[in-house]
Amino acid sequence: MTTEITPFILASDSPRRKEILQKVGFPIEVHPSQVNEDYNPSASPENFVKHFAMLKANLVAPKFPDRIIVAADTIVVLDGMILGKPKGKSGAIEMLRKLSNKTHSVFTGVALVKKQLNATENFFERTDVTFLPLSNDMIRYYVETSQPFDKAGAYGIQDWSASFVKSINGCYYNVVGFPLSRFLSLLGSTSFQKKFQSDNWLGMVVE
Amino acid sequence: MTTEITPFILASDSPRRKEILQKVGFPIEVHPSQVNEDYNPSASPENFVKHFAMLKANLVAPKFPDRIIVAADTIVVLDGMILGKPKGKSGAIEMLRKLSNKTHSVFTGVALVKKQLNATENFFERTDVTFLPLSNDMIRYYVETSQPFDKAGAYGIQDWSASFVKSINGCYYNVVGFPLSRFLSLLGSTSFQKKFQSDNWLGMVVE
Repeated sequence: MTTEITPFILASDSPRRKEILQKVGFPIEVHPSQVNEDYNPSASPENFVKHFAMLKANLVAPKFPDRIIVAADTIVVLDGMILGKPKGKSGAIEMLRKLSNKTHSVFTGVALVKKQLNATENFFERTDVTFLPLSNDMIRYYVETSQPFDKAGAYGIQDWSASFVKSINGCYYNVVGFPLSRFLSLLGSTSFQKKFQSDNWLGMVVE
Repeated sequence: MTTEITPFILASDSPRRKEILQKVGFPIEVHPSQVNEDYNPSASPENFVKHFAMLKANLVAPKFPDRIIVAADTIVVLDGMILGKPKGKSGAIEMLRKLSNKTHSVFTGVALVKKQLNATENFFERTDVTFLPLSNDMIRYYVETSQPFDKAGAYGIQDWSASFVKSINGCYYNVVGFPLSRFLSLLGSTSFQKKFQSDNWLGMVVE
């Protein structure tokens, strides 16, 4: 019963975003978009992730004007400070020590662009994550055995660091790097389908 | 730096519980324990899952008196009603219709037993899960293409039904079927290590 839909262009080289969308059978083609993530530290987390998601989408959009581009950007925020990707082992260890026994917020911004129609959407989703107290041994073991260097906040909730997480409040996949349910709800809305002239994926309209 | 520890006996045939524990490198051997899950409907969800977890652990414990047995039981509770595993396709469709656009609770009970020492632990963890409104098409598609029949509440959050979930509040892995962080915290406590004469796994003591 799956409706054939034109694959979206995923402007991201994150294997996790690709996996999340493939898990639900969502048709995508990957065309990574590299942006320099230097930023104005006075930007709010919400605006930061929305801005960079849109930047990534807009870089790829001219190559595929008749397709829907989707891009995302994820950061970790602790006590009002934005934590991006760690610099080296010592940077990763320092970040994880800061996150230990505290609640931080994960913000993911998402941008959708269909250039031919000048159609855009830009939203963010926030999930709060509470870490257990982490021993130095756990932190060192994780940094030695995992690859936390390409991940905001120096951890990937879907890997070994699952054991760091006491609880989350919000969308789990938002922490992995893509707010799946919010995205699918948007795509299921008739307003989105009109604006982007997109197909009704899986009869998801429940308005 | 991993300390060599004697593998625990996992008294469960759930591939998901095995995967969760293996994800964090926790050494286990699987010896499933089958119990008849007929129950007293007046039992509270907390007591229900603790009871059945202990029953499963105790069935296997006599075979391995010097080992630590771990067992678990998971249920879904909606509006005070316990939802177990669905009966057939129509049962699964009916359950998912009930869960649509509502918040339910997932309870997992865990039991640990080391018979030689008469040592036991028995706890439960609760996670609240909020579903999006689900269209009939989505529900039918899921039931046709997935295997919801061995899962409490007729869904597995780690599969395609990830797209049903608006947000969760609590431990994600508790919803998959095993409250990982609570379990690891218990094992990292010196009181547990004394009582069960167990090893300090990964230097997790942070008390």
